[in-house]
Amino acid sequence: MVRRVSLQDVANAAGVSKGLASRALAGYPGVATETRERVSSLARAMGYHASARARALAAGKNAPARCLVASLGLAPDALGRSFYGPVLPGIAAQASSEGLDVHLAALPGAPENAARMLAQLVAEDRADGAILLTFFPLTAEAVQPLEQARLPFVLVNRHIDGHPVNCVTPDYGGATSRAVTHLVGLGHRRLALCLPDVPVSTVRDHAAGWLQGLAQAGVDPIDAPILRFAGHHERGAYTLARRLFDGSLGDGAAVATAIVCMNDVYAHGVLTAAAEAGLAVPAQLSVIGFDDIIAAYLTPPLCSFDPRLYDVGVQAAELLAAALRGELAAPRRVMTDLDFVCRSSCGPAPAQGGR
Amino acid sequence: MVRRVSLQDVANAAGVSKGLASRALAGYPGVATETRERVSSLARAMGYHASARARALAAGKNAPARCLVASLGLAPDALGRSFYGPVLPGIAAQASSEGLDVHLAALPGAPENAARMLAQLVAEDRADGAILLTFFPLTAEAVQPLEQARLPFVLVNRHIDGHPVNCVTPDYGGATSRAVTHLVGLGHRRLALCLPDVPVSTVRDHAAGWLQGLAQAGVDPIDAPILRFAGHHERGAYTLARRLFDGSLGDGAAVATAIVCMNDVYAHGVLTAAAEAGLAVPAQLSVIGFDDIIAAYLTPPLCSFDPRLYDVGVQAAELLAAALRGELAAPRRVMTDLDFVCRSSCGPAPAQGGR
Repeated sequence: MVRRVSLQDVANAAGVSKGLASRALAGYPGVATETRERVSSLARAMGYHASARARALAAGKNAPARCLVASLGLAPDALGRSFYGPVLPGIAAQASSEGLDVHLAALPGAPENAARMLAQLVAEDRADGAILLTFFPLTAEAVQPLEQARLPFVLVNRHIDGHPVNCVTPDYGGATSRAVTHLVGLGHRRLALCLPDVPVSTVRDHAAGWLQGLAQAGVDPIDAPILRFAGHHERGAYTLARRLFDGSLGDGAAVATAIVCMNDVYAHGVLTAAAEAGLAVPAQLSVIGFDDIIAAYLTPPLCSFDPRLYDVGVQAAELLAAALRGELAAPRRVMTDLDFVCRSSCGPAPAQGGR
Repeated sequence: MVRRVSLQDVANAAGVSKGLASRALAGYPGVATETRERVSSLARAMGYHASARARALAAGKNAPARCLVASLGLAPDALGRSFYGPVLPGIAAQASSEGLDVHLAALPGAPENAARMLAQLVAEDRADGAILLTFFPLTAEAVQPLEQARLPFVLVNRHIDGHPVNCVTPDYGGATSRAVTHLVGLGHRRLALCLPDVPVSTVRDHAAGWLQGLAQAGVDPIDAPILRFAGHHERGAYTLARRLFDGSLGDGAAVATAIVCMNDVYAHGVLTAAAEAGLAVPAQLSVIGFDDIIAAYLTPPLCSFDPRLYDVGVQAAELLAAALRGELAAPRRVMTDLDFVCRSSCGPAPAQGGR
């Protein structure tokens, strides 16, 4: 069972009594300078931090765990309209039924400051456990302050390669692979996957699933390139698609009859570019998106994968509750299924085998 | 200052000691049957309910108020994808900074059972204060259990005519009036407002603002009818628009050159019907929606009013916190502004003055 570093742990390491360790850390007089410095330095090195809840529990008081939903680098007013909007009610509902109190903290800042932002969370004792919502790439270094403090946490929509953490991630790889199967079943042999050029785990999952789907369907990756655009805005996807359709990309993708986009907003950019290029969807071009938030309202209504974000939130709170109860011997990655919602943006490959 | 009915209040009314009242309500032996029945009956009539927090505070313990976000008649997995999705982060963020613990409860059921659902909330002591999110019409009868128990509550996006309650409502009337001004400024003289035929305060606010806007612009309401469709689904708006465009509605609306819809989903139905009828937007028809969640992704991109739902959530939590602190001498209605987001669905009235 993983548990927080306690004052007793620090006292043991320093070879002093718990009372002396407490007085040393609190800066009371009557503690030798050498002792105070040794205890403080050990406390820092071991990731000890004061915890209101630990104090309350030690005093025999009831203290529900505080589940902090921390949105990193995402303004609070943007959260509800973002991908994570539907995740939050799932977290809140499940946290309530797990007896956790929910707090929401928007931590502004840049990706390179993620570790500092999380260290501050710990230092301020704002949480007994945290669920992280972010569009940042997350590295092992970023979450190190939480791990050092042994503060249970769960990532949503992110995992860290080679560094197991508790996380809930929709199975984008599996879904992207299914998208390939679906399109090949419709006769498409020239495909493209449209991804932003950002180093996040979701992008890598889509790419891996794409290659796996191609292998399963017997399509040569040369005929189904992964196209990358800068940044992560609709404009990037739109511009890429414009260049694709006017032939200026200059690679095999120019004859793609089906495009898969990693979200519906990028797909909207592709649909806009297709309309401007006079390409009929789905007669000349099939398009598939992800997220299924705006998909029904696009022209034509977009085929999309629904990640069931409410359930993702439920699973995240369940996982955090299990971690808080000390039930996880090792970090656990929960993969959730996506539903394919078929609308009007996919059709049989054009007879000519190219546009 | 409004405060909860306390056990002392019940004891005073019954003319017994607080201890006897407590024993009577708890069903302890040694209390005369007549006394027990009188105390119980008074407790019910006065809206007394046991409160874990009141007990904790009375015992000198710290007990943050529990802010329950109750979604009435709305499945929890629908909440995040609904109009209320962006409201929730605003509530959660502000509640945290007010020191309130947030819980989320989805209360399934039909509109006619709203009072019973809220009475159960009170009986189960699930909240010290509540914020209600619902698509139900809400009546004075529905919220009576909360009022009787003197449990502070705030309605979001609803008010009750003739019955003041704490509520936060976007100023739909003012915004609808501005929509009229905008369209008349573009030369439109034949307009229509498209509303669902449901008895909710938001619909009434839109209708009142419409009439006010017409009066200010000097447009005869005969030339700018309010068109009602059954239910509150996109299909209803679409079907109404189809009948409007093929002339089978048979009233002045048939020559409307501009249509205002109470939300973007209805506007999507109108745009779909217009496309099917071969009507060019905005050359032959201007359309304005509300909510600005999907508006940017419609074809053409829709002009819409953004109710800034995050801020609505912030205001709701602020209002509840003020009520919990006993700062409100009377119920307060907070009206919030909407931002007009101008895109491509509005243009000058067609030269012929009609389609």
